[in-house]
Amino acid sequence: MKQFFVMLLLMVPLLVVGQSEDEEMLRKIFDKELTEGQCYENLRELCKDIGPRLSGSEGADKAVQWGKKVLSEIADTVWLQEVMVPHWVRGAKETAEIRMPDGEVIPVNICALGSSVGTEAGGIEGEVVEVFGIDEIEKLGEKNLKGKIVFYNRPMEPRLISTFAAYSGCVDQRSSGASTAAPFGALAVLVRSMNLRQDDLPHTGVQRYKKDVKKIPAAAISTNGARLLSKKLRENSKLKVHIEMSCKNLPDKLSHNVVADIIGSTYPDEYILIGGHLDSWDLGEGAHDDGAGSVHSIEVLRLFKELGIRPKYTLRCVLYMNEENGPNGAIQYAKESKEKGWKHLAAIESDRGGFTPRGFSFDGIPDIQENTLKEVEKWAELLDPYGLHHLDKGFGGVDIGYLREQNVPLIGFVPDSQRYFDHHHASNDVFEEVNKRELELGAASITSLVYLLDKYGLKSNEN
Amino acid sequence: MKQFFVMLLLMVPLLVVGQSEDEEMLRKIFDKELTEGQCYENLRELCKDIGPRLSGSEGADKAVQWGKKVLSEIADTVWLQEVMVPHWVRGAKETAEIRMPDGEVIPVNICALGSSVGTEAGGIEGEVVEVFGIDEIEKLGEKNLKGKIVFYNRPMEPRLISTFAAYSGCVDQRSSGASTAAPFGALAVLVRSMNLRQDDLPHTGVQRYKKDVKKIPAAAISTNGARLLSKKLRENSKLKVHIEMSCKNLPDKLSHNVVADIIGSTYPDEYILIGGHLDSWDLGEGAHDDGAGSVHSIEVLRLFKELGIRPKYTLRCVLYMNEENGPNGAIQYAKESKEKGWKHLAAIESDRGGFTPRGFSFDGIPDIQENTLKEVEKWAELLDPYGLHHLDKGFGGVDIGYLREQNVPLIGFVPDSQRYFDHHHASNDVFEEVNKRELELGAASITSLVYLLDKYGLKSNEN
Repeated sequence: MKQFFVMLLLMVPLLVVGQSEDEEMLRKIFDKELTEGQCYENLRELCKDIGPRLSGSEGADKAVQWGKKVLSEIADTVWLQEVMVPHWVRGAKETAEIRMPDGEVIPVNICALGSSVGTEAGGIEGEVVEVFGIDEIEKLGEKNLKGKIVFYNRPMEPRLISTFAAYSGCVDQRSSGASTAAPFGALAVLVRSMNLRQDDLPHTGVQRYKKDVKKIPAAAISTNGARLLSKKLRENSKLKVHIEMSCKNLPDKLSHNVVADIIGSTYPDEYILIGGHLDSWDLGEGAHDDGAGSVHSIEVLRLFKELGIRPKYTLRCVLYMNEENGPNGAIQYAKESKEKGWKHLAAIESDRGGFTPRGFSFDGIPDIQENTLKEVEKWAELLDPYGLHHLDKGFGGVDIGYLREQNVPLIGFVPDSQRYFDHHHASNDVFEEVNKRELELGAASITSLVYLLDKYGLKSNEN
Repeated sequence: MKQFFVMLLLMVPLLVVGQSEDEEMLRKIFDKELTEGQCYENLRELCKDIGPRLSGSEGADKAVQWGKKVLSEIADTVWLQEVMVPHWVRGAKETAEIRMPDGEVIPVNICALGSSVGTEAGGIEGEVVEVFGIDEIEKLGEKNLKGKIVFYNRPMEPRLISTFAAYSGCVDQRSSGASTAAPFGALAVLVRSMNLRQDDLPHTGVQRYKKDVKKIPAAAISTNGARLLSKKLRENSKLKVHIEMSCKNLPDKLSHNVVADIIGSTYPDEYILIGGHLDSWDLGEGAHDDGAGSVHSIEVLRLFKELGIRPKYTLRCVLYMNEENGPNGAIQYAKESKEKGWKHLAAIESDRGGFTPRGFSFDGIPDIQENTLKEVEKWAELLDPYGLHHLDKGFGGVDIGYLREQNVPLIGFVPDSQRYFDHHHASNDVFEEVNKRELELGAASITSLVYLLDKYGLKSNEN
């Protein structure tokens, strides 16, 4: 790519004569963000000055104070909503080895899954049973599983264009693998990391113990580790794996959602909610998950203020606590909303990373979902110049999902998904992996939708 | 992002009952590429076994042999088309310093622009005149420029959503800055790197000396270097910059385009051309520019073969030589095409990196452009599930552009542009910066379009 004269064909005029007020306003929103955006600097602070922010950690407390401070400079009101959160800590010890019957010892990269118990001191050791889904467990039964380590190795499906769909098809191994295998006497579980790439990074994430089921240790193994273990098992099914982890669950702690409003001029008591989650896993810096969504949400309010747009509805930024291993913040917000009868015109969530925007997905109870999509489709031409082509039914978000039963239209921000799981819940989810322009385009995209929602409302939902 | 049950909403079925033959075939193309794609491994070979491949270099020769070998295993015929190319070498010396009147010396990162002459041994030194475009030069005139170093510092316009548009608005400073300033006695030029980020990497690229104008040294300075130099100039306009470069132009060399055909069953003498360029700049590995386009083009033929699709038209892969500082390969191909009366149903170029696909842009003489776009728009629904939403008039590509006057429909593959100029012509355009899935999605996207073009032709162009 080099030649100037032919490249001129690509030139897009910054302003077109005769464009509508809405076109002009969207252009202003993008211009402002792409030249004077603050979300990248906010993300730098959140990732580099604070770092990882798992619920219950010092980082999470600092993040709450940081969110309150940043939003206090923008919003009319900022308050902290109390929420009790789990407090799980990884501990210093976290190792695994493949021990071959001939004496060969091969270390592999693992990490404990959130809420996992640790092993006994000195670790545990057992033969390994490789499976490709939790449905195999019952068939294998106690005679095959007792005293063994269950190795869940179903990979993410690469043929799915949306990597979130591929994640959905695998993540039950991580979230319920331990409690599925424990009743049959399994010693521990190793789960292939939710990662489409082959690399050495283990990806953590929550796992949930079922009530009255023995709590056995649960860890993620890197995709390279999983490939190696599978290969070694084919060579010798009698190999053993040794795992030692010192993670543990501490008593729940008090934490907070950060809630900030710019009061609406016409409907001060009706909210357009924009949210992301402030907590992150303890590996990496939670840059894409969900530092990006947090700074996106803050930036929407900032852009309204900077551009002097007085909203008709109250714009409410919610920085949720404890999405990762809760989501207690979301439950708490929805509870208070129900109790106090808060009315939400819509709730928008950004929790799919800071990648180039592709559009929005629409969620909620069926009528609401249908109606909201129809209304927003009217704005397709306004959104098109910014690459916001994806307007379809789909998942809104974990945190806003708890508002579904209050008949709130739920909208998920949809950035490009291809690289998301390269970093998800792993040590490489760091600030450097977020591209400034891609992040800013996300903030401007969400702000544009909020501008249109605020201006036109969602009339078909009123019927 | 974690919860399985809600994520199920995102699930996309791999096969839908009752889908059309075309839907099925596109699904097969994507499935094949995303599970057994070879383009990423090909790119690894091109970047890691061969590396940089500037025209005239040993790397370029190796790349030609590599392309011939890889395509010989796929295509019915492979041949090398001779083309004479420039042979410019960077040389070992390439430094610049800001020298303040108070004795302070600050090194800054520069790189010579392609085809630039070197400085005299020991370097050159001069005061600096900062400008923001070549149109300022004539106004400044000899009295302001004689003996000075001209510093072109207009940044890429961040407000443009397409970064290629931003590039177009700046690149004249690089391509013709030296020859614009030389007639007024300028000693040398320093050009702000074509990069939207602030960093320390200088980005090279071609510059062209005008006939009968003195050849003065031309270099790119990193965006951080440009910011610093500008700041220092405001502090003291009498500062000097010292530049030393040992780059030089050697006699032209013989090189080759690689041309490979899978012979069509119905129209063996009519081509669907798919091309990228094999040469790259000498910094980095030419991974995105244009290793990606080269392996995309190879992969289209490979997928047809692997899937057992016998094309009606002859599929022609052209790995062009010398796009970067020519484009002599493109000129040679177009010349032979004209002489021999080759007929092209369409020519498709991939030269915008290995990023997530967004669609295609349509180019050619006005009637052809209009007609082709109309035909392809009929396939919009087939392309939509793969995120190929961008179907619009726009630039086709530098290499295929030379077929315009032969009334060939020109089609540019359009991946996401946001990160392209982070790497363009710089030392960080390396294999590691290309995402496997994003690259594969590109190959499958182009193959899908070629499948539809081959099956349905472009009827409205026949009239």
